[in-house]
Formats: sequence, C-alpha cells, structure tokens
Amino acid sequence: MSEIELQIKTMAANAKVAARRVATLDTETKNGILHAIADGLVNATESILAANAKDMATANQNDLSDAMKDRLLLTPERIVSIADAVRQIAALQDPVGEVIDEFTGAENIAIKKVRSPIGVIGIIFESRPNVTVDAAVLCLKSGNATILRGGREAIHSNTALAKALQEAGAAAGLPADAIQLIPFTDREAVPALCQCDESVDLIIPRGGKGLIEAIISCSRVPVIKHLDGVCHIYVAASANPEMAKEIVVNAKAQRPGVCNALETLLVDQAASSQLPAIAKALSDAGVELRVDDKANEAIASAAPTTAASDEDWDTEYLDLILSVKVVDGVDAAIDHINTHGSGHSDCILTEDPAEAKLFMASVDSSTVYHNASTRFTDGEMFGFGAEIGISTDKLHARGPMALPELTTYKYEVHGTGQIRS
Amino acid sequence: MSEIELQIKTMAANAKVAARRVATLDTETKNGILHAIADGLVNATESILAANAKDMATANQNDLSDAMKDRLLLTPERIVSIADAVRQIAALQDPVGEVIDEFTGAENIAIKKVRSPIGVIGIIFESRPNVTVDAAVLCLKSGNATILRGGREAIHSNTALAKALQEAGAAAGLPADAIQLIPFTDREAVPALCQCDESVDLIIPRGGKGLIEAIISCSRVPVIKHLDGVCHIYVAASANPEMAKEIVVNAKAQRPGVCNALETLLVDQAASSQLPAIAKALSDAGVELRVDDKANEAIASAAPTTAASDEDWDTEYLDLILSVKVVDGVDAAIDHINTHGSGHSDCILTEDPAEAKLFMASVDSSTVYHNASTRFTDGEMFGFGAEIGISTDKLHARGPMALPELTTYKYEVHGTGQIRS
Repeated sequence: MSEIELQIKTMAANAKVAARRVATLDTETKNGILHAIADGLVNATESILAANAKDMATANQNDLSDAMKDRLLLTPERIVSIADAVRQIAALQDPVGEVIDEFTGAENIAIKKVRSPIGVIGIIFESRPNVTVDAAVLCLKSGNATILRGGREAIHSNTALAKALQEAGAAAGLPADAIQLIPFTDREAVPALCQCDESVDLIIPRGGKGLIEAIISCSRVPVIKHLDGVCHIYVAASANPEMAKEIVVNAKAQRPGVCNALETLLVDQAASSQLPAIAKALSDAGVELRVDDKANEAIASAAPTTAASDEDWDTEYLDLILSVKVVDGVDAAIDHINTHGSGHSDCILTEDPAEAKLFMASVDSSTVYHNASTRFTDGEMFGFGAEIGISTDKLHARGPMALPELTTYKYEVHGTGQIRS
Repeated sequence: MSEIELQIKTMAANAKVAARRVATLDTETKNGILHAIADGLVNATESILAANAKDMATANQNDLSDAMKDRLLLTPERIVSIADAVRQIAALQDPVGEVIDEFTGAENIAIKKVRSPIGVIGIIFESRPNVTVDAAVLCLKSGNATILRGGREAIHSNTALAKALQEAGAAAGLPADAIQLIPFTDREAVPALCQCDESVDLIIPRGGKGLIEAIISCSRVPVIKHLDGVCHIYVAASANPEMAKEIVVNAKAQRPGVCNALETLLVDQAASSQLPAIAKALSDAGVELRVDDKANEAIASAAPTTAASDEDWDTEYLDLILSVKVVDGVDAAIDHINTHGSGHSDCILTEDPAEAKLFMASVDSSTVYHNASTRFTDGEMFGFGAEIGISTDKLHARGPMALPELTTYKYEVHGTGQIRS
C-alpha cells in the first residue's frame, strides 16, 4: 500500500467512527453547528481570501479561462453568500428519523421504515470552492460524515474554507473527523478513496465526464453520477404555437451552459408548419441551428441553418447551438430520445392529454415535462431548498438530489417477545 | 472484444430495447403473461425434469454434497410450487405508475414523483434453479427486462425453465428478449455482463461471498449486494429473562443456516445472571458456545463452552455455533455491533424504552429489533408477498427487497407553458 493509499484509508476509517456520532446528533445540535460554521466562515474572511489569492495567482500563471477564474474567485460578498447558504440549510427540515412507512408483519411485529443517514460520503469535485462548504453542510444536516476532494486549482481556497468550517464546527460540537478535506492534490487519492468500501458508503462526483469516467472505472464504492444533459423538446401536432416558441427559446437560450438546457428539438411532421416561427425566434436569440433535411425544408428561409451530422444527435453543446429534426409522430420521438438522450430532462409540447401520457410513461428520463421548459430541473425550482446535484442514474436517487437523497432507511421492528415458528 | 463479450453485449442491447416495451405494458397484460408462464411451466414438466436429470447426473459424478443436490433437484411437486409462486406474484400490486409524492414547484408547475421500472436487471445466481423463474417474474411484474446468469451445475435445468417461460410468455404478449438466460457457462460471461453499463441498469448477485466479491471488483453497473448476516442480540440489564431465553434460542437454533440467524450474543454485565439459563437452553438445543472470559465465568457449569478467538466475533457460522460476550452497557454493545456486524439484523432485549431507542437509532443495520427474534428479516414475514433478496447495502434498497425495490422513480412535470425567468 502506498503512503497516499494509507493516508486515505486512515481518513476513511476516522470518518466511519465520526459517522456514528454524527448519525445520532439531534436536530438542534446540528443546526447549532451549522450556524457556528456560517459565522466562522464570515469571521475567517481574511484568511480565506488570502488563500484564494494564491489559487488565483496560479490560475493567472496557468492562463486559465476567464470563466474558470470567475468560478474560482472568492470575494467578501461571495463568502457572505456561502455563509447564507449554510444558514438556509440549517432552516431545512431534518430528514433523519422521519417515519417513511409503518406496518405490521408476521406475529404482529410492529415495523417502521425510518429514514437514517447513509454514513460516510465522499464528494469529489472540480473548481468552484463553494462546493466544499455546500457539500459538507448538506451531508452534516443529513447525519453523514464527509470526505471532500476538491480540484487542484482550488486547493488553497478549499483548505482555508475547510479549516474555518472545522474550527467553528468543533467549538459547537461537530465530532472530530466528521468533515475532512483531502489535504493534497495527488491524483492517486481519487482511486484510493474509491477503493475504501469498508468505510465509505457513497461517492458523489461533481465534475466533467473525464473525472466521472475515471471514478466509475475504479470504484468499489457505489457512485451516484451527474452526467450530461442531452435534453429534448418534442413539438407535437397539437402543440400551441405561441407556447412552443416561448418554451423552446427559453429552454435553449435562457442559460445555455447548464445541464437542463435544450440540446435537440424534435418536431412532428404534422407540426412542421410551426418550425419557421420557432427557428426565427431561436435565430434572433443567437442560436445556431443544425438541422436534418426535413427540418431544413420546413424552415426554408426563416433562419440560417447548417446540416446536422450524426454526432449532433448525441451532443451536449452547452452553448447557443441546437440540433433540429423532424420526426414521424410521438413513437419516433420517444425512440429518438431513449436512444440519443441522457436520461436527464425531456419535454413534450402537446394539447393532447393521451399523447402526453404516453410520452411521460415511455421516455426513460429523470424528469419528463408536459408543456413547461426543461430549465426547471433543479432543486431550487422544485422547492427542495438545496441541491447536492442532479442524478442521471436510476438507482437510489434520480433527478434533483437534496437532503432526503443523502439518507437511506432502516427497518425498526418492535416486538413483545415474538419468535418465528 | 472476445466472442463471448460480443454475445453478452448483444444480449444486453436487445434487453434494453425490450425494456422499453416491458415498461409500458399495463398491469392486466403483465398478469396475463404471468399466468401463461405459470401454466407453461407445469405443461413443460416433462422436458424440465429431463433437463434436470442431466444436471443431477453431473452432480452425482462430481460428488456434490447432499444439500447441494437437494437444492438442484426438481420434482413435479417443486415445478407446481414454482408455478404457484408465479401466480402469487401476479396477484401482487403493480408498483409501476404509483404516485409516490406530488407537489408544486416554481411558477406553479405540477410535479409528480412516479414509480417507474429500472430498465434492464442482470441477476447472477448460483445453484437453485427456481431462482430462474422467481427473478425473471419479479422483474417482469415491476416492468423490467432481465438477463439471467445461473450456475454451471444447473445449466440444463435453467435452460429448460427459461425456454418454457419464454415460449409461454411470448404467446401471451411477452416482448421478445424481455427475459433472457445466458446460454453458456463460461466464466467470462459475468465480467462481460458487468461491463455493459450502456444497457444494463442494475446487477443483483445471489450467491456466496466469492461470487459477490468478483462482481464488485469488476462491475461498472451498480450492484445491490446480499452479503453475510453476522447478526447480534444484546441482552440488557432490564431484559425479561423468559423472553430473552426464548428469543435467543429461536434466533440461533430455529434455522441456523440462514442469513438472519443469530451469530453473536452480547450480554450486559448487569444481566450476566441471565446467562446460565440462556446457555443451558442453547446447549439443550445443540448449540456450541464460544465465549469470552466473563461469559465463561457467568455460565460456570450451566453449559459446556470453548474459548472464543478474535475471529469468532466476525464469523457467520450458519451452523449451531454461537459466540457469546459480556459487555459493559448499551454503548459497548452498539460499538461491538457497528464494528463486527454486517449491517443485516441486530436486536436489543430490554424493558427500558429509552435504551431501546438509543440502540435502534445507533446500530447501523438494515433491520434493528426490540424484543423480537432476528429471524423475521424476510420479505414474507414483513408481508411483502415476494422477495428478490435482502440488501446489506445502504443505497437504493436496504433489508428485504420486493417489487417496489425493483423500481426507480421519475419526476413528471405538468405545465401550462411555464418558462424560467
């Protein structure tokens, strides 16, 4: 075992011990710790900014893009808003202990299905340092211990944030090792953490495809993934034209760089007369259209287009680009989405309830929409109050993930001496 | 890619296509298929028994144990009871489409959390051929496609059962490739299946530790494991002595070879006066006692004992052997269980509700008991009507798993044209 593997194994074992303590903290104690953390972060502003300045200097040396640098940058205002987010999580309902179901088993044993913490959660993320705080605090509120592994670019910022959080938390009763940050940037740490299945219960990666692929390939610990969002809207024959235009433009152009933005527009042959107006509105919003032959014909001179290649149907542009295809009815749309989609968010625009029902039941995605923009797939928009990610997996958690998704359940059986015969 | 990898990949891709069809079958159609399968199995008794005879002949040549041969053997009565189990599954409520939660999001979008099939489930199992039918039929009822991989010893029986099931199902509307059995026994097939994460959504292994370890090590597909059951009972100071004796003997001796049987007895120092009577009752039931020093002292001459080694505290005997330890209070019991247990089923015997509450909240196991035998951890005893296994994992499913655990959920959002601002 290498020295790094040994260090990670020790951190994981310590986290497991801490997890038992965190699991039984009552709501009041957890909220007290969260408020102390929020205050502690603001009080540590100076040292956090000093650490962040080191990361920013490296970012400048390495010629990181302006977008990357903006993600990395901390300011007094950003620290205040990170602290506010912690206070908001304190205000959310504690999921631990909730009785999900209650029934009677054989011999009249009383069975309760009770929400309980998962245990030790590893969060592996890139860049944005506020994730250090968000993830740790969501895991704490849901009764879990956390091991955080941030990106190399943010190591000084993350270390300062973690230190502020640990010190302020400890003073308010946070068990030792309940929140740990891997203090070095060696690549080896990620596979080492993913091998600790005797102590770590769940890995949540937040980052690019490369990171996630590396984790899936090596992990013995279960992983909940947030992969890409190749989101579709299908405009059916009966779609309301005004609504279709507004929703398509919103889903594509309101914020094109996010995972719930539209990437492919499917239009029923029988609705192709709606295409010119939609295409023009998209083009006016600065969207480049990559189209199949039939879509090209339908759009005619309403907007500039280029021919889509096979690859376009599987591409998450995260940009002002949209692929457009004319299909023959709802079944063809469902087949296209289930083949080329990523199981994130897909939508049908139709005034026909039976067609909507078929689409919603058949499309195999975390969130299916009828007559609303795909941009709503988001913990905040769903009213969850917080979000640790959006799962494109099907097991355990699907779609926007908040506090309840950071818990499991146990069966509590209460008897009066029952034995099995 | 080897020829076997290619074959498995093709089966998985076909299963994915089938899964879309199975997902939208209505309850009546699925139940019709299940009844046709039940009838078809009974009608194919002759060919199933002929195939089973081949497996039994090989088992005899290979000198398999009597217990193994009994697990392998099919008889006309056993085929009838396999068919009856299928009819019972038909009678269970269809989980697909159940609205788990319903709420309103931003801009008044109407959000429903709806139970939906997982997709393609790979079941990898050993020996007992009835699993071929049970697993396929549970997956079908919950709207999933299945790829079955049975043990080498049962290949002829499994093939005959699968053929009967597929033919009878097809005549009643079972989509092609919805239930597939891997038709060869090459070891390579298991890792090949576990690599098909583009088509397979979940692997459920049912078998020994070696099989499960091999699967975890290579799988890119999520795995839900049923590992060992190192189950504990803690006898607290206030335990009712008569109840303690009865429950401990029942949990250990009623059926020692199963995963919810007791393996370690913990007794509070203050309850050690109860140990002689418990030890004598266990000894009378044929149980060998492996004890620590204090337990040995307490038992004195009430029953024969041997000294426990360190290994005993981590051992699932699956036999009439029990390790016994005297501990200092409930905290020490909880620590022992969370360190040495397997997260399966653990019990406290106490008349003190506060102590019970602490134990239930702190012990990190799928099922925690207060004053009842651990032998109740079982889908049938819980009233689930069927069981695909008992999960010792914490993600997605924990404890007895039945139809709902073979589903995921999706969010259905119904709007009236909402866009995000």
